[in-house]
Amino acid sequence: MVTSIRAHLVSIGDELLNGRTVDTNSGFIQRRLMRRGVAVEAVAVVPDRAGRITAALDAVPEEALAVVTGGLGPTRDDLTAETVAAWAAVPLREHEGVARHLRGYWCEVRGFPYAENLVKQGLLPDGLDALINPLGTAPAMVGELRGRTLVLLPGVPQELRALWPSVEAWLGEHAGLGEPPPGLLRRTVRFSEPGLAKATEALRARHPDLVWSWWLTRWGVDVQATAPSPAVPWPSGLEADLEAVLGDRVYAADLSELNEVVQADLIARGRTVAVAESCTGGLLGAALTEIAGSSACFLGGALTYADAVKTAALGVAPATLAAHGAVSEETAREMAVGCRERFGSDHALSITGIAGPDGGAPDKPVGTVCVGLASAGAAYAGRYLLGPYRYRNRELSVSLALDALRRHLATGADPFAGSGGETRR
Amino acid sequence: MVTSIRAHLVSIGDELLNGRTVDTNSGFIQRRLMRRGVAVEAVAVVPDRAGRITAALDAVPEEALAVVTGGLGPTRDDLTAETVAAWAAVPLREHEGVARHLRGYWCEVRGFPYAENLVKQGLLPDGLDALINPLGTAPAMVGELRGRTLVLLPGVPQELRALWPSVEAWLGEHAGLGEPPPGLLRRTVRFSEPGLAKATEALRARHPDLVWSWWLTRWGVDVQATAPSPAVPWPSGLEADLEAVLGDRVYAADLSELNEVVQADLIARGRTVAVAESCTGGLLGAALTEIAGSSACFLGGALTYADAVKTAALGVAPATLAAHGAVSEETAREMAVGCRERFGSDHALSITGIAGPDGGAPDKPVGTVCVGLASAGAAYAGRYLLGPYRYRNRELSVSLALDALRRHLATGADPFAGSGGETRR
Repeated sequence: MVTSIRAHLVSIGDELLNGRTVDTNSGFIQRRLMRRGVAVEAVAVVPDRAGRITAALDAVPEEALAVVTGGLGPTRDDLTAETVAAWAAVPLREHEGVARHLRGYWCEVRGFPYAENLVKQGLLPDGLDALINPLGTAPAMVGELRGRTLVLLPGVPQELRALWPSVEAWLGEHAGLGEPPPGLLRRTVRFSEPGLAKATEALRARHPDLVWSWWLTRWGVDVQATAPSPAVPWPSGLEADLEAVLGDRVYAADLSELNEVVQADLIARGRTVAVAESCTGGLLGAALTEIAGSSACFLGGALTYADAVKTAALGVAPATLAAHGAVSEETAREMAVGCRERFGSDHALSITGIAGPDGGAPDKPVGTVCVGLASAGAAYAGRYLLGPYRYRNRELSVSLALDALRRHLATGADPFAGSGGETRR
Repeated sequence: MVTSIRAHLVSIGDELLNGRTVDTNSGFIQRRLMRRGVAVEAVAVVPDRAGRITAALDAVPEEALAVVTGGLGPTRDDLTAETVAAWAAVPLREHEGVARHLRGYWCEVRGFPYAENLVKQGLLPDGLDALINPLGTAPAMVGELRGRTLVLLPGVPQELRALWPSVEAWLGEHAGLGEPPPGLLRRTVRFSEPGLAKATEALRARHPDLVWSWWLTRWGVDVQATAPSPAVPWPSGLEADLEAVLGDRVYAADLSELNEVVQADLIARGRTVAVAESCTGGLLGAALTEIAGSSACFLGGALTYADAVKTAALGVAPATLAAHGAVSEETAREMAVGCRERFGSDHALSITGIAGPDGGAPDKPVGTVCVGLASAGAAYAGRYLLGPYRYRNRELSVSLALDALRRHLATGADPFAGSGGETRR
């Protein structure tokens, strides 16, 4: 069954409006609801003030689901429960199960005094039920008021995440939340957003009944296709057709990250890697050590920002630098070879480029990046033209290097053949 | 003068509602407006759909300032300009200055075709003026329509940030944006949030009429005090009293970042730096090369994750590793000394630690981090105990290393005396 639930989020908290706290709860709820086929129509962020909370509740269409986060804490500026009660013209009433949990666990076991601030958290707008919070004192509150399905959640991210499975179960029983429709996800590198749109254009035209979307990530572009309902049969062979179009640019069909995929592959094969970085200044090494367990495959690296250091630390020939420049496939290849020899690793990756905003030249504009890869008996390099932004150029350079190693591990072949030297974003 | 501007933000974009993109623009705008004494009352996040955008505009109170971000791009799903025009019942009209800029710079210089998608970006709702975007094709649009002051901005974060100073200037001239109320900001390192609260407790009690706040940052904790209005006289000597309490943990009294402060100081003194990193795997180098111009002071570094590499690449004595372990002040000091010698830099920083979640021991629990610093004729090291989280431990290790260099540059003294070895977070 596919639901026709319309979801609106209301995030409550002064800290969300003064630029200090980024609202990560909304993204979490959006992703979880999307997995169940529910699209969020809008998010309202409002301060801990009754008038603003009431206005946000009024703005939720009737028959919609409103997921309200924050303002359920024990202090006087936590106004959500009493404001919802006033908005629905119902009294606050002590919820027996919550009161029992607060007095039992929080007072008797944990030793909190059963004082006003704890009593307050057992009071729910009449008509709402409670879901017990496994990590804190504030329960989730769920039910229907004024024609809307309401879910009130504490704003503490860990508590919200711990309560969410209970919320989903409740929504399934009481609000018609269905199983997710069939769909597929592919995570790709070396595509721009328009590039992926173009590559998938014909396929999307052949399957206009599916919901297609794609979006930028840290590593590249993700693409997703979802059936709008189980009544639409899932097209057989779509996975294969899509992979024929995306080719070896796909690094995951689940939510894995590219650095995670490469690390797992290296460890599974018992291989080691070292890095030689110029314009990324350490970002590639940082990505390869971000996930616990990296010491099983990452040996180390050389940050060779200055040209003299490329020669001293990696053995890049001054003649190579003079003839081709620091940003060249030749230099990238020598950096990788020198790095592999010095660190004694199975593989070595190198990056040298012009991150910007300065340092560009007509034949090597800002965004020119060369990536090198050395393995036993072979070394490869590719050249790419990225964009104008320093931050994104450094991020994408790391992605290109990790991806080169990923494909080389899979095939043993030159990962730059046919792609290096021509990729434009 | 303090303004009575009421600000509402409207963030437009499907990607902000499917859990894929975190809205960082709102926080940026909130912080910038707060500096000018303007509090944001609410944020609405809506998809690229005319009906939803219109509803969000309707919800902005009359006489308020609405800062609308996103949906100004060249494609058909970018609906902001035409939706605002329809909402205000005004035509779209070609803006002469924008059209000239698009045809001149983007077509003649950059070689883009003057096609429909570019023409579209020169069309503004009649009554709005344009601020030219220095980084992209979408201008900001500013003016008054239906009693609200409107600022429409492209959603690309870099472009929005590049346009913001022009927006503030325009708001000062046309919308009564005043100077901020008196206040002070101090950015600190080596404080936890409760630690800073405790350190400032007495001072805050002596000045209860000021608005005090503090919050976590990438580097440490920021603290701010603001007069609620210019009618409250600014207490003389508060700056000195606060600095007496915060001491040398303050790295900025403005919005500068710690890596920016260190880079500027190195360049001003004509000094160079190199790095030797273990548990941070390149994050320190990445921080020191994040900001354009870093090649003037950053020479390079060694990522020495494996112990054998610490010896081979930096000359750390095997006896030191055997006697004290890889995570020790002794090893950190030898890493820094070896790094400085090999890279020929004026200063070298080193980091070796247990980022977690595994690898802890009773005498060296997860979160133990040693930082080293070598300069001409002297080498220092300090030991810190951070927390249980890998991500934050790596981030704070970078902060501690940068801060050690910052203080050493200022005093020439041992930056770890009295602080290393005892800092607990």
